[in-house]
Parts: sequence; C-alpha cells; structure tokens
Amino acid sequence: MTSLLTRPAVAPLAPGEIAPVRVGIIGYGYWGPNLARNVAQAADTELVAIADINSGRLSQARRSHPLAALTDDVYELLDDHSIEAVVIATPPETHHALVRRALKAGKHVLVEKPLATNVADAEDLARMAAETGLTLAVDHTFLFTGAVKRMKQYFDAGEVGDVYYYDSTRINLGLFQHEANVIWDLAPHDVAIMLHLLGQPVRSVSAFGARHVDHDVENIAYLTLQFDTPLLAHFHVNWLAPAKVRRTIIGASKKMFVYDDMEMDDKLKVYDSGAQLCASKEDIYRKLVEYRTGDVLAPKLDKTEALAAETKHFARVVRGLEEPISGADLGVAVVRVIEAAQTSLRNGGAPVEVKR
Amino acid sequence: MTSLLTRPAVAPLAPGEIAPVRVGIIGYGYWGPNLARNVAQAADTELVAIADINSGRLSQARRSHPLAALTDDVYELLDDHSIEAVVIATPPETHHALVRRALKAGKHVLVEKPLATNVADAEDLARMAAETGLTLAVDHTFLFTGAVKRMKQYFDAGEVGDVYYYDSTRINLGLFQHEANVIWDLAPHDVAIMLHLLGQPVRSVSAFGARHVDHDVENIAYLTLQFDTPLLAHFHVNWLAPAKVRRTIIGASKKMFVYDDMEMDDKLKVYDSGAQLCASKEDIYRKLVEYRTGDVLAPKLDKTEALAAETKHFARVVRGLEEPISGADLGVAVVRVIEAAQTSLRNGGAPVEVKR
Amino acid sequence: MTSLLTRPAVAPLAPGEIAPVRVGIIGYGYWGPNLARNVAQAADTELVAIADINSGRLSQARRSHPLAALTDDVYELLDDHSIEAVVIATPPETHHALVRRALKAGKHVLVEKPLATNVADAEDLARMAAETGLTLAVDHTFLFTGAVKRMKQYFDAGEVGDVYYYDSTRINLGLFQHEANVIWDLAPHDVAIMLHLLGQPVRSVSAFGARHVDHDVENIAYLTLQFDTPLLAHFHVNWLAPAKVRRTIIGASKKMFVYDDMEMDDKLKVYDSGAQLCASKEDIYRKLVEYRTGDVLAPKLDKTEALAAETKHFARVVRGLEEPISGADLGVAVVRVIEAAQTSLRNGGAPVEVKR
Amino acid sequence: MTSLLTRPAVAPLAPGEIAPVRVGIIGYGYWGPNLARNVAQAADTELVAIADINSGRLSQARRSHPLAALTDDVYELLDDHSIEAVVIATPPETHHALVRRALKAGKHVLVEKPLATNVADAEDLARMAAETGLTLAVDHTFLFTGAVKRMKQYFDAGEVGDVYYYDSTRINLGLFQHEANVIWDLAPHDVAIMLHLLGQPVRSVSAFGARHVDHDVENIAYLTLQFDTPLLAHFHVNWLAPAKVRRTIIGASKKMFVYDDMEMDDKLKVYDSGAQLCASKEDIYRKLVEYRTGDVLAPKLDKTEALAAETKHFARVVRGLEEPISGADLGVAVVRVIEAAQTSLRNGGAPVEVKR
Repeated sequence: MTSLLTRPAVAPLAPGEIAPVRVGIIGYGYWGPNLARNVAQAADTELVAIADINSGRLSQARRSHPLAALTDDVYELLDDHSIEAVVIATPPETHHALVRRALKAGKHVLVEKPLATNVADAEDLARMAAETGLTLAVDHTFLFTGAVKRMKQYFDAGEVGDVYYYDSTRINLGLFQHEANVIWDLAPHDVAIMLHLLGQPVRSVSAFGARHVDHDVENIAYLTLQFDTPLLAHFHVNWLAPAKVRRTIIGASKKMFVYDDMEMDDKLKVYDSGAQLCASKEDIYRKLVEYRTGDVLAPKLDKTEALAAETKHFARVVRGLEEPISGADLGVAVVRVIEAAQTSLRNGGAPVEVKR
Repeated sequence: MTSLLTRPAVAPLAPGEIAPVRVGIIGYGYWGPNLARNVAQAADTELVAIADINSGRLSQARRSHPLAALTDDVYELLDDHSIEAVVIATPPETHHALVRRALKAGKHVLVEKPLATNVADAEDLARMAAETGLTLAVDHTFLFTGAVKRMKQYFDAGEVGDVYYYDSTRINLGLFQHEANVIWDLAPHDVAIMLHLLGQPVRSVSAFGARHVDHDVENIAYLTLQFDTPLLAHFHVNWLAPAKVRRTIIGASKKMFVYDDMEMDDKLKVYDSGAQLCASKEDIYRKLVEYRTGDVLAPKLDKTEALAAETKHFARVVRGLEEPISGADLGVAVVRVIEAAQTSLRNGGAPVEVKR
Repeated sequence: MTSLLTRPAVAPLAPGEIAPVRVGIIGYGYWGPNLARNVAQAADTELVAIADINSGRLSQARRSHPLAALTDDVYELLDDHSIEAVVIATPPETHHALVRRALKAGKHVLVEKPLATNVADAEDLARMAAETGLTLAVDHTFLFTGAVKRMKQYFDAGEVGDVYYYDSTRINLGLFQHEANVIWDLAPHDVAIMLHLLGQPVRSVSAFGARHVDHDVENIAYLTLQFDTPLLAHFHVNWLAPAKVRRTIIGASKKMFVYDDMEMDDKLKVYDSGAQLCASKEDIYRKLVEYRTGDVLAPKLDKTEALAAETKHFARVVRGLEEPISGADLGVAVVRVIEAAQTSLRNGGAPVEVKR
Repeated sequence: MTSLLTRPAVAPLAPGEIAPVRVGIIGYGYWGPNLARNVAQAADTELVAIADINSGRLSQARRSHPLAALTDDVYELLDDHSIEAVVIATPPETHHALVRRALKAGKHVLVEKPLATNVADAEDLARMAAETGLTLAVDHTFLFTGAVKRMKQYFDAGEVGDVYYYDSTRINLGLFQHEANVIWDLAPHDVAIMLHLLGQPVRSVSAFGARHVDHDVENIAYLTLQFDTPLLAHFHVNWLAPAKVRRTIIGASKKMFVYDDMEMDDKLKVYDSGAQLCASKEDIYRKLVEYRTGDVLAPKLDKTEALAAETKHFARVVRGLEEPISGADLGVAVVRVIEAAQTSLRNGGAPVEVKR
C-alpha cells in the first residue's frame, strides 16, 4: 500500500496568503520541539532543517519531523541558502554568537528569550539587525496569549487610566540552570509583558534574592521597579515554590486586572475601579476607598496557542506585512532591566538605574 | 411575663474552671464590638463596662450589651476597682498613653495591634509591664487561628527543617486610615505570625511603597527582610487590590506550607519537600530539583474562632495558668520591624538594621 | 460606675421609619439564636421574649439577650398581648400546631422552613393565615441573599429567556435529624429558590435515595422535576459528602448562571448564552454549539446578611408596607414538591404528580 | 544539506523491550490525530498507515506523519498483511462493521468508545474476539489517567470499604453529534471508570433528559443507577453548561474521594471517612455524623499522558505481556448500561434492568 496522496504542485497563492517562510531550527532541547512543531504546522512557515549538537535529540527530531534535514553542525544549516529564517532555541549564553552569525548569513531571526546575557551584547545585536534590515524577533511568547492581547487592547484604547502598580508572581518547583539564576530564567517573561502593556521606561531596579539549593545561583528573588511616575512594579520569581502560581495584578485609576494563568477558564478578570476616597460614616477613624462598581468581567479570550500566533506573526513580519510586536528593541529593554536587577542583587538590593 | 430564670448564686468553681476575669472594653469602633462579643460570651471573662468617646457607638454597645456599664470617660472605667483587665481597641496613636494609664491603674491589658506607633513607646510599655508584673498582651489575632496553630506544631516538632523563605501577600480593597499607612495597618499581622513561627531575629528590612489615592499615606508596599541565615522574608501589603488575597508560602528543607486564608476549606496545605538537586537526564543544560514526595496534606484544623481562643487564653494568662503567646516581647519585636520598614521607606528602600 | 446612657423616651418616627414590631422567638436551638440576634439588632423589630423547653438554651439566651423575657412555656409567650409577631424555630413536626396556635392568638408568624411536614397541614395554615389576614412568612433565607436577589432581577427584567435546566447541588458532611431525611432538610432551600426565580409550576417529581448510616433516614437523594415545558430541574442533596458544595447552574436561552455559594467573592457568574447550532467546519460528524459571546460577568452583589434583610422585610410586611416575598403560598408550593419527592422515593423513583 | 542520521539497522531487543506493534489508524477526525500521535511516538508501536474517507484529513495526516501510508480505502489498510493491529476512531455507528472486518482480517483492535451502539452488536464483537483470540480493547482513556489509577490502587488494597455512592458530573459547552445524544457521548467515560473501580454489576438504570437545541438529541441527562447493595450511582451529563465541570465524588465507609479533572494540581483528594453516628451534645434534635479524621490527602499522581500509557498497554496486551484493563467485557458492560439508560429515557425515567 502506498500513499494515495502526492505532494501538490506549487499553487498560486490565494489572496492574503504568503509564500511560506523557509525556517531552520537551531537547538532542539527543552523549548525547541515546541517551536519546531509550530513552524511545521503553520501554513506560513515551512520547517526545512534542524540543528543540534546532541545526537539523541536529533533522533527525537527525526521521529517527529522525518522530512526535515538534520545536522549537528549549525554552520551547515546557516550556510544553506534556501533557508530564509532561523529560530534559535539554544542556551542564553550562546545567543549573541549565534544570532550574530545568523544575521551575517542573511537570515531573519527569532531567538528564545532573553535576547542576550548582557546589555552590550543585546545592543550589538539590535544594531546589527537595524543595519542589515533583517527581522530580529525575541520569543517573548506570553505577548501572544489571549489574556495579554486582551489587556493590550484595554491599554491601547485608553481605558485603563493611570497605572498605580504592576505586581507579578511567577513561582513553581523549577528547573535549575547551570548558567542562569531564577531572575534570568523567569523574570524576562513578566518584564516583557509589563513593558509591552505599559510602554513606560523603567527608572531603577532593586533586587533581593537568596541561594538555598545550588551555591551558584539564586532560586528566589524579588524585584522592585520604579518609574518617573508613582507607578511601582514588583516581580516575585521562585524555583522552590510548592505550588505553581502565575498571577499578575495591575492596579490603575480606571481598571484593575487580575491575570491568573493557572485558571483553566477566566484567566483574565477586569474590574472597573476608579478608586475614590470617601469618609466612612461608620467610623471617623478611617476613610473607605470605594470602587465605582464592583462588577467583574472575565472577557472572552482568543484561545489560539500563543506559539502558533507568534510563528504566524513572525512569518508576516519577515514578509513585511506586520510590524514586530516583540522585536529587538523590546529584547534590549528587557535585558537592561534584568542586568540592572543582577547588579542590584550583587549590591544588597541598592536601586540601580536602568539605561534608557 | 417575666423571666423564669434568675441569676444563679455564685457557685463553687468546678475543677479546671477559673473565676471569670472582670473586663472593661476601651474603644467600641471597628474591632471593639468583636472583642466585646467574645469577652461577653466566654466563660472565663465577664464584660463589665465599655468606654468610648462617641455616643453613637455607646448606643450600639447598649443594644448588644445592655447590662454593661457604659461611659464616655475612659478614666472612669480605669478607676473602677472591680475591673481587673482592660481590652484596648482604640487607634494606635492612643495606645501608649492608654496602656500606660491602665497598667498604672493595676489593670491587666490586652491591646489591639500594634502595641505602639514607635519602638521607644513599645519598649516603655514592655518595661512597665515587667515592673508591675501585670499581663500585657497584644492582640495579634491570627496567632490563634487553626492554621497558624497547626503550623506552629510542625515548627515546634522540628519537622520543618531549615527555612528558606517566608512569603506573604495580604491585599484587598482596604480601609484607609488617617494616621497610618498600609504597612502599619496590615504588615503587623504577618510579621507577628512569622516571628511566632520562626523565632529568628530579623537583621534588616528594606521597604518600597507608593501613594496613589491619599497624598499622605502609602497604599501599597513591599517589605524584604533579611536574617543571619539565607532566609528571605517578604511581605506584600496593598489597600488597592481588586481581589482579596491572604496567602503565605513558607519554603523549607523538610516541609513547605501554603496557607491561604481565603479558602473556605483546606486553608493549610503541607508539602513534603526535601528539595534535592539532581541532574536531569533529558537535558544536560538543566538540573531538576526533585521533591521527595509530591503528596500534599491538608490537615484538619481547629475551627474555634480565633478571638474566642485568644480571649480564653488571655484570661488564663491573667490567672497565671498559661504563658503568654502574644506578649509584650512579641509586640515590641513587631514594632521594631515595622519602624525599620518605615525608615527604609523614607530612604528609598535602603536596608535598615532592626534592633534586637 | 453606671451607664451614662438612659433609654431614650419614645421619639416620633422619622419619615420611612416604622414602629418596631414586638417579636417573640419560639425555639432557641440551632437556628433560633441567629433569628434572635437579627430581631434584636434590627431597627424595625424588638426582641421581647424567648421561649424554649430546654433550660440550658434559655441560659444561653439570657447571656446574649439579658433584657428579653424568657420562658419554658410557649403558651405564656403566645398569651402576651404586647407581642405582635412570633418567629418559630422549632422542629418541623411542631410547626403546624404552633403556627396554628400563634395565628389563633393573633400573632403574625415567621416560621422556619419547611412550613409543615405535609401538604394538608401546610394548606391548612395558608388558609388560616388568609382568613385571619395575618402575615404568615416562611423563613427561606436564601431568597434574601445578594446572589438570589440579583438573579431575580435578571428574571424579572426578561433577560434570561427560556429556561432549559435548573441544576442544584447542596452537599456536605451534615447534621442528621431524627425526624427528617436529607430531602426534608436540604431540598426546601433549593426548591424555594427555584420556584421564586422561575415561577413555573412543577408537574412531577422523581426521587431516588439511599440510607447508609441511619437505617431510618435517607442521607443522599437525587430529585428530578419535570414541567409543562422542556425545562428539567434536578437537585442533589447529600449529608455524607466530604467537601461542601453549594452550587446551582441555570441554563437558559439568553443567559446562563453559575451560583456558587462557597466562593468567597464572585458567588454569581452570568454568561451570555444564546446557544445556536452551527455546523462545524472542522468535522462533518459533529455540530458545534456556539455562544454569542463568551464574556462572563460577576455582578456586584448586595452583601447585607440575608437574615437581616429578611427580618426587616418581615417587619415591613407586618406593617403593610411590602408584599411578602416568601409567604404562605410559596411555603405550600415547596411542601407540595417535597411531599411528592417523598412519595416517589417510597415508590422506587416513579414520577409523582405535584398538586397545583 | 542532508540528514546526518541514517535509520538504525534493526537491533536486537533489550530485555523488557518488545518488537513494536505495527499499527494502522482508521479514522483521522476529532480523536484520531491524538491516537496517531501516540502510536507514532511510543517505542512499543509503529504507525504504518492511516485511512480516512476525507481527503482534507488525509492532507493533515501527511503533514504530521509524512512517512505513514495514507489511503481513503479502509479495506486496503485491512488487507495489508504487515499491519498487526488497528486503532479505530470512526463514528460509533460504524464500529460494529469495522471491528468485525478487522478481527476477520486477523488484526488486534483498539476501538474508540463506545464499543458499539447497542448491546447485541457489542456482544457479537466480544464473542468474535474471544473466538479469534485477538485483542479487542476499547479506548476508555480515563482508565489510564493518574487519578483513576491511584483510586484503583486504593480499591484494590481494600482501603475504601463499603461504597455508598458514586456521583459524577461531566458537563460543558459541547459538541453536538448528529447520531448520538449526550448520554452516548459523555456517559460511557464515567460508567467505564465506575465499573473499573467498583467491580459491582449494575441492577437498574433510570434516566431523564431533555432536548433544547436540536430536536433529535438530548443535550442534558441525569442517570441514576441502582445495585444489589445500597450503593447509589448518579451521572449528570450536559452539553449546554456554561462552565466545564468534570467531577466525581465517591463516598464509602473508609475513604471518600473527590476527583476533579479541572484542577491543574491536586486532581484527586482523599478523605479518611469512617462516618459514625453520634448524638450531638449541643442539640437533642439532631445527630452529628463525625469523620474519624478531617485530614485531606492529595496524593502524587502519575502524570504520564493517559493515551501514551494506554497505547503502551495495548501493545503489551497484543504481545501477551499484560492482561487487558479495558477489554471487550468492560466495553460490553458499558454499552449495557447506556442502552438501559436510553430505554429508560424513552419511558419517562422508569428504571430499566441491566443485563448481567
């Protein structure tokens, strides 16, 4: 028995369709298989090749993607002229060299977060992308979730008002990394979401952390960010929490948000706020803050897998059809905050200015 | 129709019973009615009198406690020789003067938290209590909840191991106070619970906060506490949160706790931990932390109302039958931490040493 | 020291105020103290006397209500001409005789649910109330909760559409009663809420149950109710459930409700429905039902204690200012459903017609 | 660039390994892709071919499984002698003919639930499987989840005691099927879990349902099952529920279980029960049921994807290494209960005996 189906001859593109971007994946470890699966399944991208230094992983790649070319030599992949774009999912300390090399080879790049492990490297990559005119996108996946997209709509529509605080908790029993502490591992997610939503530059960062399991890396940290406004942002990241918590609370003058990613339904709750001081009649000692209305709305959210939305968006940015949502600028801004947090951590929590 | 029941003649005490402590309540505002109700209902205490400067509140008091003497002159109450103990539920800034006056009048004292609004005053009261030999208890009510009592048993039994972190979130849409910010209002609860459970002296406090509604008082704050060990403690207090959260997570080498006071059932969850580093086979880049077992236990908790348990305990301390759980020493220790937090807050988050 | 406050002389009523209804409480067991507390605290009622056959309970009553007259002779209370209304909180099997006697004595009556233990008795009381012109209210407390009042607004405003199903689960580790099974104990709550909201007469009831602990009484039961429309109602009541569940789901053509009384916040969630059949493009085997919008609203609810609202309402009905929400008619309708369920239970689940 | 990797030559099996079972998938609609993915990824099975009548689905299959043979002719697949086993994921009304044909062709079969759409057909298939000696397994996937496996351990160890009730709720906004109502769609899951855990034969079934959207099929139904013991089982299935609920409560004399599949963590909670009647001291009207202990345990669960565990198990049953967990007998037993429910539904809820 052989297949009834033959590969279709190349058909003219329908209106709105783009020629699929030919993509190579570099790194097939923890996150790479998810990226590969989305690149393979999306109509806008075609999975051409996969590179990894580990033969066991290449065997797994062959099982899931038997038609992709496989190699343990990343340069072989980068030298393939038929590949237009690469998705890089290797450890952070390799990002600078690999992205550089990929841009040099004329490839568009989607690189796993963080863009680089220090500000100088991140800025170098952003500069190079700007010079080459190639797309350099950073995989801040959460920006493509239904909840973040819905919040962004509220912000863009001016319905949020003055933002008072941004409070995020991202804790779980975690994977420890040799090269990075919990700040580098988890905080980029939330810093990217916050910068994306608020669009305000961070003035300074103060960070406290502790090491309990591995003497080299912090497994818990608290980051406090200050701005030019009274806005206060705070991030709790933790690899040693017994329960998984992924919750962001945003307080503002017109709306308040609770975004709980561990809820199966209703991940986002929106509260009309408009906090107002009023003297309480019952008690002269205290003043009660009243909300204009206590109704809570859990808006319907787009349930498209974030990585699928991001992959499609990347392809359309490469084709010049969309502006990058998570481009090199955002990638640099995130690294600036994280690097400042590291400096503060080494200095006992002293606030560290963030380059703008 | 008249009552069938006549007041019983004084009966000899049964074994284990104590003569009820005759109590006067000073302050019948927000919290006072709860204290009065418990004093009235407990077998170990007798509600004799209530003082408040506000006639409207005295009218309410008469409705609920028609047999108690009522006065708008606190000194009249303190001069009543038949009263053995007073419960003080007035604003914090009045605590020092009133507790001083009560001790001078020979009364045992249970005072609402915080003990005083600065360390000097708190220490003064503790000293005076020690000199007079009278009981000076601070109403840190949460110490008498089933969840905290159960955690305390784990700690006392040595089943917790080295404590890594103590993380508390106490946020809601709050009552604003003229005289106090959110730190003075909410943090004493959690600082008291933490000191009670851990028994470790705090080395330094760093605090960040912001004012969004009232220009005089912070409505959000983050406190980070450091110790002589790698233990890190952190408190998030917030009067402008859309949802009420009351959650404490404690990470330690043998057990981890999640204490969620907003759960109707299962407020306390206990995780066997024993986090251990182990190389993950799947990924050479990462090390996985494994717990010895993932079973989670929600132990049965004593459901006695905390204030009832505290009232009974206070009476037994007054009668010399129990050691104080929440005495002047704890009250002073809490004020030391809060005052240091205030100092840090005024100094941009710089860590401030805590007096021991 | 004596009270500064003297009882105020009788003052002329302010606009909107009513002369307090003088109330006697009959029965001070499980629920009586809650009723007594609300009657005592409400401005519209005055607690005059309490009757109970148990001297221990009368002692408790004296402690909480020292100014109320106390008696172990219910007839003494009923003969007191100064008492205008009685609240009866005695076991169900005593309701018929006591309510009868109270109406005969010219008292308005608020009786704990169920109105009576059989339809004939319930109808007799309703008839007698109608003849005497006195108020006969049944204490279906849940009708006065914020969640039920809010749902009732949706129904009254015609925003719900055709009701498809009414599904209720009321289970917990329960109190067993000698005289009643779990249906008589728990189902009246939900049947009353349903009749109140829907206003449709029940056609038939089918009930299944089982006895596992006490050989005389069912501790678990399932009731299925049918109507003249395709509406299906179902009640699960259970005294042997490990976790407490109090949840009602109502499905209708325009709105759907989830009312979860165990939620601390957001007890009511409202879904825009408008279910519509549509052929799914992905799968010709199946048809997908789509909702018009997936937004979920948790409306702000009145947080007044239900019993306080009910007490005030009862006083205003007695004074002729409001129409009864939970009067004798509703009380009879509830008993008709419960009695039919009992009959079905004894007949192996066969549907039993409900008298209209 | 070409692949570095070549297919390994056939290596001798390591101890414990089995020769992969060569599998064909019949039906690539809603559930088929999940089965195909697991068959492809498991070490114990090899995905050889996929048959579907729909060319669009075959295109999807080619994208995900480019090396599998594809056909729109199921007989071509069944005639392929290299295929040892087939996984059938076609609509229920096709099961009887396809399973028959597959067994006749000498193939082992794993068929999606239900085994057949009536008892006669189901029994016919079970008989034929017994005669041929081939494996006939029914895909009751939930039997392979961590939660059900853990409950089964409690039952097998005799730690549960007498079972009092089995209460299941499986409701959501559902997919409507042309050919089947909500009972046939959802109830087989829960009936299979219940039969698997309890091992007691069902005596009778009573079912009520209603049609609100499609005039041909019930979208809501309640099933009550009775046994030779006082055990009561109940299933609520509903396609028109605004929120997704997947919860089973099992009450028994020694343990109680709450299995909530919508919880991200702690899907299973285990309560020590041992309900005992005791006279309550507080109230002579009532008897309190007390549990021996109120501790609740959330045991660690195997997190292997259920379908992966089931696929592996199926391969090992085919190879004669394991006894079938979800074989033809269970498949028949489930269809007997569902068919009885259908009969009861058509007869106004009258209890219908279940063939044993």
